[in-house]
Amino acid sequence: MVQFYSKRGSNIMSEPERIRVGIAGVASYPGVQLVRLLLSHPQVELVYLGDRQHHGRRISELYPDLHGYFTNKLMTKLKPVEAELMGQACQFVFLAEAHGNAWTLAPVLLKSGCKVIDLSADYRFGKLDLYKAWYRDVLSSPRTDQTAMQQAVYGLPELYRDRLQISNLVGCPGCYPTAGLLAIAPLFKHGLVVPESTIIDAKCGLSEGGIQPKKRLLFAEADQSVAAYAVSRHRATPEIEQVCNELAGHHIAIQFVPHRVPTVRGLLTTVYATLRDPGLVRDDLLTIYQVFYRASKWVKVLPNGTYPQTKWTTGTNFCHIGIETDQRSGRVMVISALDNLLKGQAGQAIQCMNIMMGWDEMVGLPKMGLYP
Amino acid sequence: MVQFYSKRGSNIMSEPERIRVGIAGVASYPGVQLVRLLLSHPQVELVYLGDRQHHGRRISELYPDLHGYFTNKLMTKLKPVEAELMGQACQFVFLAEAHGNAWTLAPVLLKSGCKVIDLSADYRFGKLDLYKAWYRDVLSSPRTDQTAMQQAVYGLPELYRDRLQISNLVGCPGCYPTAGLLAIAPLFKHGLVVPESTIIDAKCGLSEGGIQPKKRLLFAEADQSVAAYAVSRHRATPEIEQVCNELAGHHIAIQFVPHRVPTVRGLLTTVYATLRDPGLVRDDLLTIYQVFYRASKWVKVLPNGTYPQTKWTTGTNFCHIGIETDQRSGRVMVISALDNLLKGQAGQAIQCMNIMMGWDEMVGLPKMGLYP
Amino acid sequence: MVQFYSKRGSNIMSEPERIRVGIAGVASYPGVQLVRLLLSHPQVELVYLGDRQHHGRRISELYPDLHGYFTNKLMTKLKPVEAELMGQACQFVFLAEAHGNAWTLAPVLLKSGCKVIDLSADYRFGKLDLYKAWYRDVLSSPRTDQTAMQQAVYGLPELYRDRLQISNLVGCPGCYPTAGLLAIAPLFKHGLVVPESTIIDAKCGLSEGGIQPKKRLLFAEADQSVAAYAVSRHRATPEIEQVCNELAGHHIAIQFVPHRVPTVRGLLTTVYATLRDPGLVRDDLLTIYQVFYRASKWVKVLPNGTYPQTKWTTGTNFCHIGIETDQRSGRVMVISALDNLLKGQAGQAIQCMNIMMGWDEMVGLPKMGLYP
Amino acid sequence: MVQFYSKRGSNIMSEPERIRVGIAGVASYPGVQLVRLLLSHPQVELVYLGDRQHHGRRISELYPDLHGYFTNKLMTKLKPVEAELMGQACQFVFLAEAHGNAWTLAPVLLKSGCKVIDLSADYRFGKLDLYKAWYRDVLSSPRTDQTAMQQAVYGLPELYRDRLQISNLVGCPGCYPTAGLLAIAPLFKHGLVVPESTIIDAKCGLSEGGIQPKKRLLFAEADQSVAAYAVSRHRATPEIEQVCNELAGHHIAIQFVPHRVPTVRGLLTTVYATLRDPGLVRDDLLTIYQVFYRASKWVKVLPNGTYPQTKWTTGTNFCHIGIETDQRSGRVMVISALDNLLKGQAGQAIQCMNIMMGWDEMVGLPKMGLYP
Repeated sequence: MVQFYSKRGSNIMSEPERIRVGIAGVASYPGVQLVRLLLSHPQVELVYLGDRQHHGRRISELYPDLHGYFTNKLMTKLKPVEAELMGQACQFVFLAEAHGNAWTLAPVLLKSGCKVIDLSADYRFGKLDLYKAWYRDVLSSPRTDQTAMQQAVYGLPELYRDRLQISNLVGCPGCYPTAGLLAIAPLFKHGLVVPESTIIDAKCGLSEGGIQPKKRLLFAEADQSVAAYAVSRHRATPEIEQVCNELAGHHIAIQFVPHRVPTVRGLLTTVYATLRDPGLVRDDLLTIYQVFYRASKWVKVLPNGTYPQTKWTTGTNFCHIGIETDQRSGRVMVISALDNLLKGQAGQAIQCMNIMMGWDEMVGLPKMGLYP
Repeated sequence: MVQFYSKRGSNIMSEPERIRVGIAGVASYPGVQLVRLLLSHPQVELVYLGDRQHHGRRISELYPDLHGYFTNKLMTKLKPVEAELMGQACQFVFLAEAHGNAWTLAPVLLKSGCKVIDLSADYRFGKLDLYKAWYRDVLSSPRTDQTAMQQAVYGLPELYRDRLQISNLVGCPGCYPTAGLLAIAPLFKHGLVVPESTIIDAKCGLSEGGIQPKKRLLFAEADQSVAAYAVSRHRATPEIEQVCNELAGHHIAIQFVPHRVPTVRGLLTTVYATLRDPGLVRDDLLTIYQVFYRASKWVKVLPNGTYPQTKWTTGTNFCHIGIETDQRSGRVMVISALDNLLKGQAGQAIQCMNIMMGWDEMVGLPKMGLYP
Repeated sequence: MVQFYSKRGSNIMSEPERIRVGIAGVASYPGVQLVRLLLSHPQVELVYLGDRQHHGRRISELYPDLHGYFTNKLMTKLKPVEAELMGQACQFVFLAEAHGNAWTLAPVLLKSGCKVIDLSADYRFGKLDLYKAWYRDVLSSPRTDQTAMQQAVYGLPELYRDRLQISNLVGCPGCYPTAGLLAIAPLFKHGLVVPESTIIDAKCGLSEGGIQPKKRLLFAEADQSVAAYAVSRHRATPEIEQVCNELAGHHIAIQFVPHRVPTVRGLLTTVYATLRDPGLVRDDLLTIYQVFYRASKWVKVLPNGTYPQTKWTTGTNFCHIGIETDQRSGRVMVISALDNLLKGQAGQAIQCMNIMMGWDEMVGLPKMGLYP
Repeated sequence: MVQFYSKRGSNIMSEPERIRVGIAGVASYPGVQLVRLLLSHPQVELVYLGDRQHHGRRISELYPDLHGYFTNKLMTKLKPVEAELMGQACQFVFLAEAHGNAWTLAPVLLKSGCKVIDLSADYRFGKLDLYKAWYRDVLSSPRTDQTAMQQAVYGLPELYRDRLQISNLVGCPGCYPTAGLLAIAPLFKHGLVVPESTIIDAKCGLSEGGIQPKKRLLFAEADQSVAAYAVSRHRATPEIEQVCNELAGHHIAIQFVPHRVPTVRGLLTTVYATLRDPGLVRDDLLTIYQVFYRASKWVKVLPNGTYPQTKWTTGTNFCHIGIETDQRSGRVMVISALDNLLKGQAGQAIQCMNIMMGWDEMVGLPKMGLYP
């Protein structure tokens, strides 16, 4: 078998700046997505691929197309998820496991001097009570990581870039809060809309549901069907509200309804909100959004009259945003699209790493899709 | 070739009650859907299959699976769309052509004593001005059918059953108004919500776009993608508002945003509205909906906590409705699902015919899908 | 909730000819497909819905769209799969469970006077050795139903109609043997091809894999992908060969390779075989096929130059067959298409029941799909 | 709008080795795929984007996600397809137009000193007669480019790498010949199979059909369906046979049948052939294939017992090959998978360019997909 990335082995000497990176939960969709992206990230070297369920197996048994990408044979065999071992081997660790695991690993990793990015919900909330209210089912014992929790930064770079630059622990948002918040942040930040009028209607592909086999995720069940789920009680709600509260300066209840649509990747959110000043038109808002996201290379505000299609973002780390106003109703509609496994998950985590390490925010991330 | 429906030829004698039915626009999706349904409708006999573009060709050239369903060889060859000829041959005519054709045919057909159901927009509006404001592009010359227009009934049986029973001309709504109006009618009729808070977010499959080849309808373009279109300016808007106005007794601006999702069939609408009385809970509303639709056999109000999936309605004429309330926001979410080519189009047209003819509303229409 | 089929309750008196039917394995795709079809079969009454895994639950918990189809409340609750109980309640039983269960039930049912159709592999093989060679893994103890096994008829009506008319126990073929055998039977029967040149390349949708959640059946895994599986060792092989041997009068090894394609329903097989007489042309073969299937109402031999599309058969019990010859290679290509859950499974089982009961072969089965 | 590739403008000075590249037919799927790939190819600069139908429009009107990738504003506006202009501006030109256009452009471009790669059929055939026999319909006047035709090399690098290194004009094969020939070349080269026993059964996604709207390519028509087409008369046949003849040293008739399956990208071919030596087993053949493709970095021979899935190759330039033998039949089955728009089209064209320019064969081409 040809070795595609022979540089991996030999380059460590000549490029001393590569940092040693580990991943926990490699077999999951976010985990393997991180592997795929990081294999071609010029600043990192993958040194620890951990997976609780599959350790001891080769990664190419789980994902046969990955056969041949590792020169280092030791890397191809998955290791157990043990914080001590990971802390010794790595300078940077991504946790891509189910909710409720990260808080038992992160304190140990931080103590070893690792920087940590968690893709589960464990470090997304500022207040333990809020986490417990929505994730009680994943907590088998009381959390004992208060210190870690308090220093965690919410991994949405477009809003928290400054904090991310100096953080060692990041709780990355899922795809729904990312798409929803990027769509409404400028409105809330500038007080342009009546907060409680905000409705987020989200449509997401099936990879959002993960790789664990469930009846509702089967092709025969999910194809040719569209449905809402968790109406008015989805776990993304408190995450979105927490940020909105901070942007607006007071408590806000957001209406969030997710829908399942038969695509593999792709998340579209349609946000509806009533403008405080009904005189604002599309052009005004486009300008406001362009200014708001001027420094955010991964957000594209689309030109006048163009609404995003999820497919334009597939395979990239971009979030596309389109805006429309309706003079008759006094509402603004903001539509955002992104790839739920990239900007909505693994891509955003790497974007956060880039910022935490002081690198260019775009390095190692795909900029262009291969439409169609 | 085996003749599957040999009764067609011989049964005319023994079942004198079959009425002679014609269709204009047989090659279109609504047209051929009518053919498929009416071939097994026990009260009708298809006697005229007309198509402007394809007359002279056999229907089995366009839809090869229809080979062998007509004993009468004359029927297999498509005829021109000529009102005089259709009027002589038929007692009942369905017009399934593009917008702007029906008004030139309907007056002639009515004069011949035919009952007429139009599936285009031509007879959906009570006021010519409203039609002209939204469909100006399809009008090559001024409409001269004022009399016909005034007697036309809007073909949504659940709201206008009484008027349909005595009408000779019906303008059938498209899939978007049907799904939207069935979801919100009880709320508006009983004044339960703040009208201007109403938002209709619709997700529809690709067959909605018809059979004429267009780039945006290609598989390679549309698959794996979700997008909004015609935001705040879709032609379904005035149709929905017209009925809402009537239900509420005053003018209402509805927010309607359609989205394209990659399924062949299926329309899901998610309706958001603010309750006047925030004390109303899901159970209350379920009761209200069950009562409202008690006589409507084609509407299923789903049990507590069940939200519809479009696939449950595929291949049937049912509209499924699920309801949720959110105490935190004071809103009600009503979700409706239907098959856009059946209850959203051809099925509903036949339901209207059944009512106009005094037959059972369910006759000749599919009651059960073949999930998955 | 409106009762859609009120006839179920009241009609028993006035239509004494309805037979009492039970199903084991109702929650599976073939099981629920039988339920859906039999609910509108005019000659049967469903009296026993059994399911090993889900007994005690309501069928509408598993398939919410089935809510409201049973007037008899007792019917909606699933019962255990117990041969004695089923034998007492039913005159006819369909077994739609996993391989290896039927042979423990069928002898008891037969003894109770039931006629039995099994959809698993248990009664498809004339010789126990062949069954054991390919299904050893499902046999936890030695089979003790030799008598039953010897009287079982292979449920492919187009080839075994005569035997089915007088049988009490039928082993229905799966979708692959059905599609493959219908495509090649006339060739083998008339000795038109070199038997060992026969290759069957099959492409089937995901519902073939059943409703038990498996990683390879997930939408995110299966969509946008095509793959061969079980190359040269699929269990359909001995089934196909067994019939071919009988048709040809001597042992034949068939090359069979199944492929997974991302559709919910639909099976297309492309059969390649070398003609003994290279002078035979398409027209000759079309005539031979038309004659061979003259009495087979569920097989459509397509006109000259038309090849079947699986979608034309979706939602029907038809098998479509198209034929092409290649003068350059001396080969014939026969392409067959069917709905893997209807003619390939539940539909064919009902077709067998119709024959066993002396009814019209087409009764209670869908004749026309709702394309697109 | 952020400029993603600001290097494009400034780098010309500091990296003088970038060559100036043009594309004719940019709006087509192969054309825009070339644009997407070449924008990140480190050795080229795109200087001419030509399109017959859309010149004068911006590329971002056709593909809105491409907005912002060109610093040079002049580049965003599509130019006419004029050989003289392209010859002056470019050192290397890709022709990605419909069959029958390239031969009017290539001679002029070659005269200007350009190297040329054509993605149509015009330069795939060594003999004009063969081209005329299969592409007569695209020839409006007699071809006058005999000299060019004779120097053209068939752009399948794995078989013609040596000739490509010294060629100025290449006719790139389409996806069907590429996948078919890579699967069977080692068998023919080594005389391992009975040539006339070879059957190629191909299954390809809808993007193969191009971007011009056609009814059969519509989502509503093509989704949920599988079908064979052009049985025994597809234009890929003579292309495959021409190479097979060369490999085997004598004329061979190949049986080729393409099928349409509902994926956007992806081509799977299943090749069947009778082994001359039935004693050969899978392991033997795997070794033979590994040796045959040792120098071919873009071909992956999969390990024992693994068959390719098209999705593993999506978004990459790889062709995956899996092998199985059947002792019962004496046949070998070779299964190849590739992305029809990359290794099957635009990716292969760039691979050819890399070879013609003496660059690393893998440069500028995607090595890893983003499964799922």
